[in-house]
Amino acid sequence: MKSLQKLRENSIKQTIEAIRKSVNEDSLINHTISNIGELDKVANLLVKRLREWFSLELPELDRSIQDHEVFIRQILEKNRNQLLKELKLTENESMGAKLEKKDHDEIVLLAKQIQQLHALRDQHISYLENVMKGYCPNMLEMCGTTIAASLIEHAGSLKRLASFPSSTVQLLGAEKALFRHLTKKSKPPKYGLIINHPIVTNADKDRKGKAARALADKISMAARLDYFKGEFKAKELKEDLERRFS
Amino acid sequence: MKSLQKLRENSIKQTIEAIRKSVNEDSLINHTISNIGELDKVANLLVKRLREWFSLELPELDRSIQDHEVFIRQILEKNRNQLLKELKLTENESMGAKLEKKDHDEIVLLAKQIQQLHALRDQHISYLENVMKGYCPNMLEMCGTTIAASLIEHAGSLKRLASFPSSTVQLLGAEKALFRHLTKKSKPPKYGLIINHPIVTNADKDRKGKAARALADKISMAARLDYFKGEFKAKELKEDLERRFS
Repeated sequence: MKSLQKLRENSIKQTIEAIRKSVNEDSLINHTISNIGELDKVANLLVKRLREWFSLELPELDRSIQDHEVFIRQILEKNRNQLLKELKLTENESMGAKLEKKDHDEIVLLAKQIQQLHALRDQHISYLENVMKGYCPNMLEMCGTTIAASLIEHAGSLKRLASFPSSTVQLLGAEKALFRHLTKKSKPPKYGLIINHPIVTNADKDRKGKAARALADKISMAARLDYFKGEFKAKELKEDLERRFS
Repeated sequence: MKSLQKLRENSIKQTIEAIRKSVNEDSLINHTISNIGELDKVANLLVKRLREWFSLELPELDRSIQDHEVFIRQILEKNRNQLLKELKLTENESMGAKLEKKDHDEIVLLAKQIQQLHALRDQHISYLENVMKGYCPNMLEMCGTTIAASLIEHAGSLKRLASFPSSTVQLLGAEKALFRHLTKKSKPPKYGLIINHPIVTNADKDRKGKAARALADKISMAARLDYFKGEFKAKELKEDLERRFS
């Protein structure tokens, strides 16, 4: 009886140990890149509100500036008169009302908050880059921070990514389109997460599929080099691709 | 021809003027209460990530603290050893891994960000209270800040709210359930947004519907008093209700 209990205690100890050791760079990368996605989503939601809210004051600014970060900077750095001048409007031509200071301040607080969310996102990206420099330098060089991290997150870990055939890497993130193809005979997808990679975006329209296939091939190699602690070869692999597709 | 053009210019001017004058307390209240809702949503989304991410370090804390704000304060104010002590765990008993400082810092940054979102939300609420004190003191006294603001937002403006019959006020925010009742013969809803009002929550289970009806009645009166700039009577109305339903 006693030895059984001891066995049980030891097993629990070993399991706790194993769980603790399962925390590695993969989990850090996964959480960071997921959080970057969430911060983007969150900031976009709040920016929509900011634009509508500020339009009480100056609806013309919303229409004239598309970029969210520029829009926020304008609100934070300039006062009403400066903004009116830039839009070449007089007080009477604008459709906005002049709000009291206390009402305006509330909008400014929201703008500041969104700016901080953007700053946190940027901070996360540079942290991610730092982690990946040590953990998977080939992937980082090959794909850039966000695409490389998304690929690892999608696969679950660098180990799994390295074990995938390159055709799977090519379509990671396009699962919905793939199954639509398999069940409803729609066109097969050509690329998944790598759609935003410069090699694919810069390729001619009729060679995008080819570029994606070649790129996935090299990414697969980079993942394997990283996982098995091989040398740093991503630069050559990338140059090779760039020669072929641009 | 010339007079036609003049007419056109004048019409445009008048329209701009009308749009500018349409900005009033209603629009400020609507934007603020909507933004409070969005900030809640956003903070909840990020807190979920924070809990998961921090669980790499100390999964036991996630389980032991339900309240998000307390959870965040714990992370920000205490270091690993203090937290372990509070959970009555030693380093070897915890299932969490000891992260490096740079990895831990990233989590702390997220926690700080969420704390600021909560602070902005609180700031918005006290601003809202301030606006409503001048604009609709009866509604404010009758329902409290968030419920009163939600009612106004849902109706579109204080004017429209004041024009609603009290049965409509009672069901504001329960439109889905109401139409389900009308089309599919499900039970009719008893209350909408006012479900969270203390008068309703504190009423006995079988008198909740009655309480909601009486409350909606008084809210309607409060809205009309506010819109037509009547005197401040909400205190008496509320006391009357409290006597009947508690």
